[in-house]
Amino acid sequence: MKTLILISHPKFEDSGTQQFLKTSFYSLDDVKYQVIDELYGQSDGIDIEKEQSALKGFDRIIFQFPMYWYSSPASLKQFMDDVFTRNYIVANRSVKTKQLGIVVTLGDAKADFQAGGSEQFTISELLRPLQAFAHKAGMQYLKPLVVDQFGYMDPEQKEKLLIDYLQYLSAEMPLSLANREKWLVERLQSTKQGKSDEKQQAIDLVINSLEDQQNNVESLKEDVKMIRNQEE
Amino acid sequence: MKTLILISHPKFEDSGTQQFLKTSFYSLDDVKYQVIDELYGQSDGIDIEKEQSALKGFDRIIFQFPMYWYSSPASLKQFMDDVFTRNYIVANRSVKTKQLGIVVTLGDAKADFQAGGSEQFTISELLRPLQAFAHKAGMQYLKPLVVDQFGYMDPEQKEKLLIDYLQYLSAEMPLSLANREKWLVERLQSTKQGKSDEKQQAIDLVINSLEDQQNNVESLKEDVKMIRNQEE
Repeated sequence: MKTLILISHPKFEDSGTQQFLKTSFYSLDDVKYQVIDELYGQSDGIDIEKEQSALKGFDRIIFQFPMYWYSSPASLKQFMDDVFTRNYIVANRSVKTKQLGIVVTLGDAKADFQAGGSEQFTISELLRPLQAFAHKAGMQYLKPLVVDQFGYMDPEQKEKLLIDYLQYLSAEMPLSLANREKWLVERLQSTKQGKSDEKQQAIDLVINSLEDQQNNVESLKEDVKMIRNQEE
Repeated sequence: MKTLILISHPKFEDSGTQQFLKTSFYSLDDVKYQVIDELYGQSDGIDIEKEQSALKGFDRIIFQFPMYWYSSPASLKQFMDDVFTRNYIVANRSVKTKQLGIVVTLGDAKADFQAGGSEQFTISELLRPLQAFAHKAGMQYLKPLVVDQFGYMDPEQKEKLLIDYLQYLSAEMPLSLANREKWLVERLQSTKQGKSDEKQQAIDLVINSLEDQQNNVESLKEDVKMIRNQEE
């Protein structure tokens, strides 16, 4: 599966959150990224046909941005207005069946985004325009990954974010426990290459333990199912 | 009351809808407008401080735009990102108590914007980011004026739109029957100037008839109230 991250950020290089995320996805082979603001910074402007055909090779497209006034910065909207022409999206159905993911970073706490909270509306409500776009384009809208208050995260929280983010970019959807574990095993398999025999054995041990755990979960699920059936 | 219309449209001069609306608001003295795209077209870029202080004199600010991918064109977002700094909006509360109106034009029918319709979400839902902005800025969010399928309107519908639009720009809110009639009487009064005696008398007749009607409505309301009280 190939993933394209379209980043909208007027100061991408200066953003600690964005640079952390960039360092993370550099470890994945099938992930490419594009900072939209850099496309518009070019002297000869954006090449619409080039951008349209660039999307073809990807299965998952991610819009990644900090929330500015309850939506993306203007550059993502400019890109959508320019590249996602009606012809491209509606007549030719060019991105149909692709997945659309959203990685949105917040300066405020997630909990403020609800009725009665200081931001009044939920992230789901505020992202309706993007959800409506995915619907019109025939794309599968993925549950957004919301990263709030990165600046306050301790190292453990950042590690968790890193895994969540990498899975959001490259794991099979939905992000169920089974799909997360499958992803982890694949990642571990790929890190074995070029390692010493000893290290490979250690990695295999971890993989086996994960797979045992997964089998245990499956067998527990079966048990629960049986008990439920007996109760009915 | 002074109103500023901030228009976001990449092809303002070519848009039949926008040109119709422009011809309409030209008849109002206390209404100014600014095409945001023209601000950004200037060689020396946008002057943020100038734009910030320009807003000061207005009581009602209107965002006017065609719906592009379920929100405004990028230029309005760029303007918001640049001019509505956190300092200006949140720390200094610079637009607090002003009214925020939205005039949004649609190519599709209003009825498509609902659950089960081809556009899936309502206009209210899609405009949440602007509503959330108004909330944060301490502005009064006015019920949006939605203009759909202008191209299919017959002359009578266009006349109605013209009145609705002028009232949205300059009448007291909310747009109750009483506030609409008050607005109409004021407009008629101001057209009397410089007219012949005969014409002034004709206008006075219309004004008197409107005021009579208004009095009738008030007296009917009183009657209904009395009947209800007797019933209880």
